[in-house]
Amino acid sequence: MEDRYEKGMKVLNITNKEKIEGLFDELEDIAPDLGRFVVEFPYSEIYSRKTLDLKTRELATVAALTAMGNAEVQLKDHINAALNVSNSPEEIVEVIMQMSAYAGFPAAINGVKAAKEIFKEKGLLPLKWE
Amino acid sequence: MEDRYEKGMKVLNITNKEKIEGLFDELEDIAPDLGRFVVEFPYSEIYSRKTLDLKTRELATVAALTAMGNAEVQLKDHINAALNVSNSPEEIVEVIMQMSAYAGFPAAINGVKAAKEIFKEKGLLPLKWE
Amino acid sequence: MEDRYEKGMKVLNITNKEKIEGLFDELEDIAPDLGRFVVEFPYSEIYSRKTLDLKTRELATVAALTAMGNAEVQLKDHINAALNVSNSPEEIVEVIMQMSAYAGFPAAINGVKAAKEIFKEKGLLPLKWE
Amino acid sequence: MEDRYEKGMKVLNITNKEKIEGLFDELEDIAPDLGRFVVEFPYSEIYSRKTLDLKTRELATVAALTAMGNAEVQLKDHINAALNVSNSPEEIVEVIMQMSAYAGFPAAINGVKAAKEIFKEKGLLPLKWE
Amino acid sequence: MEDRYEKGMKVLNITNKEKIEGLFDELEDIAPDLGRFVVEFPYSEIYSRKTLDLKTRELATVAALTAMGNAEVQLKDHINAALNVSNSPEEIVEVIMQMSAYAGFPAAINGVKAAKEIFKEKGLLPLKWE
Amino acid sequence: MEDRYEKGMKVLNITNKEKIEGLFDELEDIAPDLGRFVVEFPYSEIYSRKTLDLKTRELATVAALTAMGNAEVQLKDHINAALNVSNSPEEIVEVIMQMSAYAGFPAAINGVKAAKEIFKEKGLLPLKWE
Repeated sequence: MEDRYEKGMKVLNITNKEKIEGLFDELEDIAPDLGRFVVEFPYSEIYSRKTLDLKTRELATVAALTAMGNAEVQLKDHINAALNVSNSPEEIVEVIMQMSAYAGFPAAINGVKAAKEIFKEKGLLPLKWE
Repeated sequence: MEDRYEKGMKVLNITNKEKIEGLFDELEDIAPDLGRFVVEFPYSEIYSRKTLDLKTRELATVAALTAMGNAEVQLKDHINAALNVSNSPEEIVEVIMQMSAYAGFPAAINGVKAAKEIFKEKGLLPLKWE
Repeated sequence: MEDRYEKGMKVLNITNKEKIEGLFDELEDIAPDLGRFVVEFPYSEIYSRKTLDLKTRELATVAALTAMGNAEVQLKDHINAALNVSNSPEEIVEVIMQMSAYAGFPAAINGVKAAKEIFKEKGLLPLKWE
Repeated sequence: MEDRYEKGMKVLNITNKEKIEGLFDELEDIAPDLGRFVVEFPYSEIYSRKTLDLKTRELATVAALTAMGNAEVQLKDHINAALNVSNSPEEIVEVIMQMSAYAGFPAAINGVKAAKEIFKEKGLLPLKWE
Repeated sequence: MEDRYEKGMKVLNITNKEKIEGLFDELEDIAPDLGRFVVEFPYSEIYSRKTLDLKTRELATVAALTAMGNAEVQLKDHINAALNVSNSPEEIVEVIMQMSAYAGFPAAINGVKAAKEIFKEKGLLPLKWE
Repeated sequence: MEDRYEKGMKVLNITNKEKIEGLFDELEDIAPDLGRFVVEFPYSEIYSRKTLDLKTRELATVAALTAMGNAEVQLKDHINAALNVSNSPEEIVEVIMQMSAYAGFPAAINGVKAAKEIFKEKGLLPLKWE
């Protein structure tokens, strides 16, 4: 069990160290096991597998959360994580814009707004498009 | 018609008296019939039936609204109602965490955050897990 | 290409001039092409076709965004647009209430709340129901 | 209560007589009250109100069910109903196509396929676009 | 690891032995780890906790999958599981009907149809309502 | 206009030539413009941009459609496309499994089943996991 937790935290320390600690704090007095599940299931069991690299995984998660359109906080966390594993801001916005075709313009526009908040905090705006 | 309304209000007075009055106030100058429909259809026709008790009904609604992930205000109202009909805070969080398997972690985490706001107002934190 | 953009802007100037300009401003430093896509695809290719008038189109969009329940800003924009193309506030609320049957009461209630914000800004409350 | 049921059936006899009877048959040995709720709530309480005509209501429902994308049988029933209350096949397809902007192309394409099945049964293909 | 798997299988042997074996067979040549995750995460980590009994858990899952409306096979599996842990067919249909208020009539009707298939196989029809 | 269409078809000839022709055939007598929109908007305007390669784009689309869980045919088409632009079957299944964390196990399992049908047709089973 320890191993599983450590294996998940190793990935999270690369992808999104600051955000996962905030989540643990928030869950501590109400649902600490839910925080543990996040570490032990997706990060330990899935993200640590070799078939896909973390850069691709985070971009795919940004695509999915944009398309689902009902998890703004988590979308921002994964936009942050996507940057942490070497996606450029332009690649992130590109995959979000692509979602307009599968989930409609409102989902894509809201995804871009989420990205804008993260990029602004990090001084990444304006983006440089060819 | 009167009867139907009264029958629904009898259930609402048990499950969520304070919240339904806030809803009536909010709808009064724009869609008063929508408030009446809520009383006369789900509460009068469904919640007042005997096959399931109110405790189970409210827990099932918390599960569903957590999974759907797009109705935060109503989820909080039903977390409140679930407490009012004898669900413990731990039971409520448990069913919300269970939704991680069916609707993903973002939905479950957002459900727990909604519960946290309600529980905080009522001084129910920290929860006591075995 | 120019033509396509102009054709879309001609519709947007009727339906929602003020909101589309806000969107362009918001997207300018992050995803300007997404704003262009909105003009060139839905407004130029779809809304400018003759089979349905703009009044009916905007009402259908209000219905759909209410039912989807995950795009509050865009729902408000289209409630505004629906008013701009001669839907009465009562017609707009009516189609939102109708969605309770297809997407549940939380979606309908949240739709009415979105309408209330727009109508309040415009001094259209209270509505006049027969 | 009788009145409410009769009022709803009066609308259903106009919009979709054949389909509602099939639904009653299907629900008879498992959930007959659910059939009654459909008559007494949406059709009696909403569709029978005057603010919107049945032609507009059915078109809005087709839009919403297309956008939601998870109720194929009901979408077909409402495409059928939309025809019964004087929407042309082209108007129905137009509103379905419009949904590509709000819910993505897969939802719009699946909506058109649903329409195609209904139109084929009724000998309405090929459509005549200007 | 073994322990976690065994703990999950102990729950699955009570709730849905026949269906989980079908799933393992189906995943064997394509994604065997996904079957393992199902056992080790929701069943071992969540369903085996004491805060809620299996009867309540399965009913909540039936509610959620009905409301989500996009997982027919899994809804049927959990209707089957709900029966296996002492929910009556009437309780199952009742919670499905309740979802009409939160996710609309199409979701509720499709949920009842899913239940009908399972109940028919098991000779449980017609249901006995008071 | 010609140019835009040709630019989109150039991408589609690489990603999914056989499927797009089937779609054109299906739409011909009911909504030919919807087929044109698919070529001219997502493929011409988005997929032909350089910021992301086609391999990554198709994988992101597979992730999103799996998570949305309501577009089985289009999910299969994009699994096919993902193979056509050099994703291995294992990479495709990996991104589908990853969605269990964001959209739940039913969505992930249904995504794997969709992949299984495509892989079976192409003789790609059993997969080879390390």
